[in-house]
Amino acid sequence: MKNTLMRWKLPIVCLVWQLAMIILFGVFIRYDEESDAHWSVTRMSQNHSLLENQFYFRYPSFQDVHVMVFVGFGFLMTFLKRYGFGSVGFNFLIASFSIQWSLLMQGWFHSLDFSDGKIKIGLESLINADFCAASVLIAFGGVLGKVSPVQLLIMSLFQVTLYAVNEFIILDVLGAKDAGGAMVIHVLGAYFGLTVARVLYRPNLDQKKNESVYHSDLFSMIGTLYLWMFWPSFNSAISNNGDAQHRGVINTYCSLAASVLTAIAVSSLFEKKGKINMVHVQNGTLAGGVALGTAAEMMLTPYGSLIVGAISGTVSTLGFIFLSPLLEKYLKIQDTCGIHNLHGIPGVIGAIVGAVTAAAATEEVYSREGLKAAFGFEGRFADRTPSVQGGHQAAALCVTLLLSVGGGTIVGFILKLPFWGDPSDENCFEDDVYWEVPGEEEAALYSVHYVNSPPTKPAVNGDTQQ
Amino acid sequence: MKNTLMRWKLPIVCLVWQLAMIILFGVFIRYDEESDAHWSVTRMSQNHSLLENQFYFRYPSFQDVHVMVFVGFGFLMTFLKRYGFGSVGFNFLIASFSIQWSLLMQGWFHSLDFSDGKIKIGLESLINADFCAASVLIAFGGVLGKVSPVQLLIMSLFQVTLYAVNEFIILDVLGAKDAGGAMVIHVLGAYFGLTVARVLYRPNLDQKKNESVYHSDLFSMIGTLYLWMFWPSFNSAISNNGDAQHRGVINTYCSLAASVLTAIAVSSLFEKKGKINMVHVQNGTLAGGVALGTAAEMMLTPYGSLIVGAISGTVSTLGFIFLSPLLEKYLKIQDTCGIHNLHGIPGVIGAIVGAVTAAAATEEVYSREGLKAAFGFEGRFADRTPSVQGGHQAAALCVTLLLSVGGGTIVGFILKLPFWGDPSDENCFEDDVYWEVPGEEEAALYSVHYVNSPPTKPAVNGDTQQ
Amino acid sequence: MKNTLMRWKLPIVCLVWQLAMIILFGVFIRYDEESDAHWSVTRMSQNHSLLENQFYFRYPSFQDVHVMVFVGFGFLMTFLKRYGFGSVGFNFLIASFSIQWSLLMQGWFHSLDFSDGKIKIGLESLINADFCAASVLIAFGGVLGKVSPVQLLIMSLFQVTLYAVNEFIILDVLGAKDAGGAMVIHVLGAYFGLTVARVLYRPNLDQKKNESVYHSDLFSMIGTLYLWMFWPSFNSAISNNGDAQHRGVINTYCSLAASVLTAIAVSSLFEKKGKINMVHVQNGTLAGGVALGTAAEMMLTPYGSLIVGAISGTVSTLGFIFLSPLLEKYLKIQDTCGIHNLHGIPGVIGAIVGAVTAAAATEEVYSREGLKAAFGFEGRFADRTPSVQGGHQAAALCVTLLLSVGGGTIVGFILKLPFWGDPSDENCFEDDVYWEVPGEEEAALYSVHYVNSPPTKPAVNGDTQQ
Repeated sequence: MKNTLMRWKLPIVCLVWQLAMIILFGVFIRYDEESDAHWSVTRMSQNHSLLENQFYFRYPSFQDVHVMVFVGFGFLMTFLKRYGFGSVGFNFLIASFSIQWSLLMQGWFHSLDFSDGKIKIGLESLINADFCAASVLIAFGGVLGKVSPVQLLIMSLFQVTLYAVNEFIILDVLGAKDAGGAMVIHVLGAYFGLTVARVLYRPNLDQKKNESVYHSDLFSMIGTLYLWMFWPSFNSAISNNGDAQHRGVINTYCSLAASVLTAIAVSSLFEKKGKINMVHVQNGTLAGGVALGTAAEMMLTPYGSLIVGAISGTVSTLGFIFLSPLLEKYLKIQDTCGIHNLHGIPGVIGAIVGAVTAAAATEEVYSREGLKAAFGFEGRFADRTPSVQGGHQAAALCVTLLLSVGGGTIVGFILKLPFWGDPSDENCFEDDVYWEVPGEEEAALYSVHYVNSPPTKPAVNGDTQQ
Repeated sequence: MKNTLMRWKLPIVCLVWQLAMIILFGVFIRYDEESDAHWSVTRMSQNHSLLENQFYFRYPSFQDVHVMVFVGFGFLMTFLKRYGFGSVGFNFLIASFSIQWSLLMQGWFHSLDFSDGKIKIGLESLINADFCAASVLIAFGGVLGKVSPVQLLIMSLFQVTLYAVNEFIILDVLGAKDAGGAMVIHVLGAYFGLTVARVLYRPNLDQKKNESVYHSDLFSMIGTLYLWMFWPSFNSAISNNGDAQHRGVINTYCSLAASVLTAIAVSSLFEKKGKINMVHVQNGTLAGGVALGTAAEMMLTPYGSLIVGAISGTVSTLGFIFLSPLLEKYLKIQDTCGIHNLHGIPGVIGAIVGAVTAAAATEEVYSREGLKAAFGFEGRFADRTPSVQGGHQAAALCVTLLLSVGGGTIVGFILKLPFWGDPSDENCFEDDVYWEVPGEEEAALYSVHYVNSPPTKPAVNGDTQQ
Repeated sequence: MKNTLMRWKLPIVCLVWQLAMIILFGVFIRYDEESDAHWSVTRMSQNHSLLENQFYFRYPSFQDVHVMVFVGFGFLMTFLKRYGFGSVGFNFLIASFSIQWSLLMQGWFHSLDFSDGKIKIGLESLINADFCAASVLIAFGGVLGKVSPVQLLIMSLFQVTLYAVNEFIILDVLGAKDAGGAMVIHVLGAYFGLTVARVLYRPNLDQKKNESVYHSDLFSMIGTLYLWMFWPSFNSAISNNGDAQHRGVINTYCSLAASVLTAIAVSSLFEKKGKINMVHVQNGTLAGGVALGTAAEMMLTPYGSLIVGAISGTVSTLGFIFLSPLLEKYLKIQDTCGIHNLHGIPGVIGAIVGAVTAAAATEEVYSREGLKAAFGFEGRFADRTPSVQGGHQAAALCVTLLLSVGGGTIVGFILKLPFWGDPSDENCFEDDVYWEVPGEEEAALYSVHYVNSPPTKPAVNGDTQQ
């Protein structure tokens, strides 16, 4: 029997991680110019509007991303009938740690002010930190139910670092664009998570509780809908101000609508009575958002977005129906949430769509200055052409895949060490391992003796609770 | 026994509908000026702020409307104890189709650029598309539980067209104002839906599952609260920038607060022990939002808004208590969600309030230019006076009622055709017809053998699983 | 047996309260300049942007606060297994009344236009009204399950008045700053609520239903997450435009992240098997938001915020574990939701942090003008220094504590009068007293005979419902 007692392990890891964050924030993190108290004073002395603060450009989008990370992902994973606490609760825990660690890691790579050695943060930093947390949560979806919270915190520690390194290579070194993170968030999160899941393969995994019940499926739909509704914000949150943010919303909105129709169509088509499977509605409908993760801010056109969404919804749902069982049987990847179908394949699709859309960009469509602004053809990349950009987008995908699998392997073996308190094979997908679960009274709840005489319908079982 | 097998019908309809959308978007739909890549370049070259993009004026409101459509309506309808999947899932499906088809239909009427024959879309188009989807979902509420997803997609196809035609007549031809859609959304959706429900009347409808249980009522409150909280955005989302958006929020906020107090008061008053009925809290509290659908952006005054909200909450709740049973018994209208009480009557109230408030408008209150801006007294309508406007508002209500009932009759008979896979009378309000429903284990869930010794409370039933 | 029949009491109170609101709004409340129809006209005639309307600066923050009040608090309290309707429903009722009464009370103190004797309201008024409602809901959390809706409406009537008086004294007279209400909202709400709870002490309170079940804990997490995610908006919603709003978000975001790690750490540390307690996750994780209620807009620094959040999460959770039982046993305070641990102590921490941060403010950090703008060193307070400000912040805390306990005592005795229809000791925490509760069928729900053959898993109990 495994030792899953968290009484020292979990508190120590949490408190040490948090203390480290405090110390590192104290050494490195400061407000950027627009969140510093000098800002309004300077603006007003120059008679400039106080609205020209990135806060006003990006706060609505930031809030949506924040909801996706904490409610969207957290509730999406509550489909498991006995792991609702773990899904929402561990999601909450590792996201809260990841956003702090990301502010540092991404800060060192992107926001380091060399004049004083400090990381200057603002709202865009918070958005990027949430993005990084999202990637960790995607990986969490692959191992959901089979790991301890300590393993998750350790996975987060490494994955955030890997994320920051990959992001630096593909955005700064290769000069790729990926505003909605099809590569930096989804491909990385999925293939890292799948690799970790593979390393942690359990040949005798008891899957009896790896399923939903009626109400857990409804809780999960809360998650799905928040992810779906706010994905336009996610894909446009860090795009250039103005038309890029606006266009990112339009494109993603269209793509997601098409995913819904195709995911439901495919779900119905492959069930012998044509019944729709909730798992497909919970996941396949979101694929269009992932697949626009790179190209949303580009001039993809609304019909282009519909096409990408339709294909993604179809492929994603086919993945749930056919591919996941194969991955489990032949590659020994036990992917709890089917992250490969929602984030893996659609992430790759998104990277390809981005590469193609970039390569196909023309001055006619974007205008000369618009092309430069959209793809960052300035400074080091001033002589780039769209097809060169497309090539670099593709290279970025390859780098991400390599780093994901490589990093996932290393971290997987670290997590395999026997002292992190992971659950035994029979106790996976069970909240009672790490949580105080309320008593068995729920079934009895509805035969509680009422204050007044009970409704006229007869009690189903004769139990009464005094 | 009816044939409810969806295996070819549903996928084919979804895929054909989606393909049609792709083709039509390809032919017609393009980005408008503010979402096109040339925009920021032009703005910056003129040293103008990038904030002056309708994206920044309207995105927060748009996101709220989007949540109302997908979570608000979707979860409001989960009160049905065995139709949660259908409520949320079909809501998701038909809204996703409707927003696409609306972009085209409304685009042809409103956003056609005659210079190149393309429909130019931007954020305001997305808001209007969501508005149109809301109208479809209102009608869905009237037939909820009694139709197949194929019937719903067909109903959406026709209703979106009807919506666009009616909207064109009342806004463009008659020059009425209806920023929050008391007429174009609520009156149309309700009376169209009720007429369809009438045509599809089932004399032997088994209503045993047409009711809630404890947890489904709580899921439904999620829907209610999101509709309630975001209605200020809904009623102001397409109002003129500046004070009109601001005022629309204030008026709606006040009206809705008054609806809550009166709905609960009436609910308690008419129950013999004064107990509150959740159905009234789920619906009657929202009536004030509907009733401000036309006048929210007008100078209705905060106390005027409170009066309208108080009356609407009262009337709506009285409708649930007294009117719905009469409509069912004498007019054979089986209105599952009571859409007549929330959208029908309050929509008519809203239209009347709008007409009166318009007729009562003065230059003193609005300023001369303000009056023109508020009511569109320009171009073709330059010589209008407020009382003429009021008359046209009333005419708009009549047109909407006629089109709703007329269109509903036609569509009702189309839906009555016997090959759409609708459920039999005994299988209405049951998810198992169209959905793979998880097993019967939920009751047993709570007597699952725990990892550690169970809590000290005795098990209610002695069953253990495995 | 107590008379809990609400049939006349509740409707009369609701209707009289609502009528009073209508009359008082009619006499006093008008639109402010930015929500009046003259505004855009004037702006456009001067060629000024329509974006410079407080609506655009504050609407996203307002919507988040609104969600916190109605969904956040409402669902947080649904942890009670048989009081979900009361939690969400009474929250809805008293918040809807409180926001109306607050607009008047706060209006008389703050927004009275002496030229015409009217209260001019705008979006910031709505935010402040929601803030006041939040304070009432905090007190509600202390008496949850033990009072009738009539008592709650009466409590709201008095508490809103007390809130407005206290707010006027500490903000206007003492010149303290408290943008996120650590004092005006949290300290007041908590200590007022606890005092009322003390006066209403029930020595024979039957606490059997004062607990959660699996699904009610998940509903409660919806509330927790919305409070957590949107607290940055709450703490910055009425801060100065520009960097202050931006900084308030960053500080609160950091503080809350740290609360999560420490709350979970402490929860695990003090359970003999290290299992996490959902109550701690539902509440302790939010303490960092409360504790930044005063200082969020100040130059607290991100690491300062992390420290405050870490301490608050720890203290709050320790409160749930050790302090609440002591308060109940020795001080006879039956605090249903543990408001002392989430709003009381963290509110006091927040006030102290605010006082210290204010006292430590320097011109170097804020700039001279920035210091004046941040702390309102102008007009009557033009000669203030930071340490004087810090002293006044501390004084403000003392005033708030005194008014809370004093006001709570008086109101407690008013509520103790025997004709408000409160529940008997055996019927506390039971929805059936004031709500029509759906039948006992839920347990039977899942053995309903399916349309098609049931899934292959065996039925757990043999019941079938035809």
